[in-house]
Amino acid sequence: MNIHVLSLFPEMFNGVFGSSILKKAQEKQAVSLSVTDFRAYSGNKHHQVDDYPYGGGAGMLLKAEPLFRAVEALTTTSTKPRIILMCPQGERFTQAKAEELAQEEELIFLCGHYEGYDERVREHLVTDEISIGDFVLTGGELGAMTVIDSVVRLLPGVLGNGESPVQDSFSTGLLEHPQYTRPAEFRGMKVPSVLLSGNHAHIDQWRRQQSLYRTWSRRPELLLNTELTPTEQKLIAQWEKETNI
Amino acid sequence: MNIHVLSLFPEMFNGVFGSSILKKAQEKQAVSLSVTDFRAYSGNKHHQVDDYPYGGGAGMLLKAEPLFRAVEALTTTSTKPRIILMCPQGERFTQAKAEELAQEEELIFLCGHYEGYDERVREHLVTDEISIGDFVLTGGELGAMTVIDSVVRLLPGVLGNGESPVQDSFSTGLLEHPQYTRPAEFRGMKVPSVLLSGNHAHIDQWRRQQSLYRTWSRRPELLLNTELTPTEQKLIAQWEKETNI
Repeated sequence: MNIHVLSLFPEMFNGVFGSSILKKAQEKQAVSLSVTDFRAYSGNKHHQVDDYPYGGGAGMLLKAEPLFRAVEALTTTSTKPRIILMCPQGERFTQAKAEELAQEEELIFLCGHYEGYDERVREHLVTDEISIGDFVLTGGELGAMTVIDSVVRLLPGVLGNGESPVQDSFSTGLLEHPQYTRPAEFRGMKVPSVLLSGNHAHIDQWRRQQSLYRTWSRRPELLLNTELTPTEQKLIAQWEKETNI
Repeated sequence: MNIHVLSLFPEMFNGVFGSSILKKAQEKQAVSLSVTDFRAYSGNKHHQVDDYPYGGGAGMLLKAEPLFRAVEALTTTSTKPRIILMCPQGERFTQAKAEELAQEEELIFLCGHYEGYDERVREHLVTDEISIGDFVLTGGELGAMTVIDSVVRLLPGVLGNGESPVQDSFSTGLLEHPQYTRPAEFRGMKVPSVLLSGNHAHIDQWRRQQSLYRTWSRRPELLLNTELTPTEQKLIAQWEKETNI
């Protein structure tokens, strides 16, 4: 997969693209990552990429032309690549979206910084608008890194066996149960005795119940998509009753 | 504000902490940022910070002791700092949480990588568990950078006037209206004529309607918290009628 990022702060990507999984994925040639300062495509001698909004208002906007020209220069496939605008108005990023993007041959990310975009970028250039959440960031760069990390780790051959994530909460539909490792007692804090019992039927049952309890108490909406046994349904009814006393 | 990050991949933070707003905020002494490899606090000669889970199962877990010791070594205030665990089971990060954290004197972020945590970290060390969304990342580092960016830009003196974000969608409660900048025509794509009219009453009305329309079509739940005039309510009723035909 080829991933290109357009940003006015390309140096922001050095640490993340040069470490850990993204570094390994490039070494294994599962992905090629590049970051381009789209100021190089300004098309004017002052290298200006922003301008005042028509109709007045605070702040500056990124002009359409540098982004159109940069995307055209970077596209390497004959088919149109997915062109992703990171912005607060975008679709909320989810694991399903990561899986969808992991099927593509080429992704181009557009990252603004402080500023809005000329609407023609949204209307005529991009294929997807993505937001990682309802909070204000300085630019689209951290969102792009986040999407890229979650997509690249899904590509074939990227994750080794030793790295398969314990915390893959979203694949089972429930939040993960508590986990403990050595020592069995640390500063008076003990590991639950069932985990030291060696009785795997008990351990599995305890873990499932803890998973259910954590999901019920923190993210009850996830239970709507989970198949529950009659016993588990009773257990949850019991928790709900206890809460309402 | 003092912000410490505990991570096994400290080099991931170089680009983000060394650029743009986070760089400027440190130069202005609005924030001090440090990243510590908590392997230094392993307390054993092999510098091991993870171990197998009690009760069996795939993957490794981060041990409690190195994280407890690292937090104790890094805490500089006499009061207990906010200690934030980045994890998928955490509370969903929002702008309100960013504003809350921006009031603190000291924040410590714990970032796991591939692995889960010994539950005693969750129960007895951390004050907050935060998730940036329902997607799987390789580690907590990108989440920590995201939270830190959104918090630091709220600190007094960090954002200059020229940098106040155009896209501050979440403060008005509506998504931002479309914006355009020069040229008025680019490859046949024209700026809406109202924006070139110089009639500011018309421009304001157009922008408000566009903002409403975008919010209604993309994030209708945000309208529940917005005060609407009777005319605007009629307009939305009209859009709903047209959609249902």
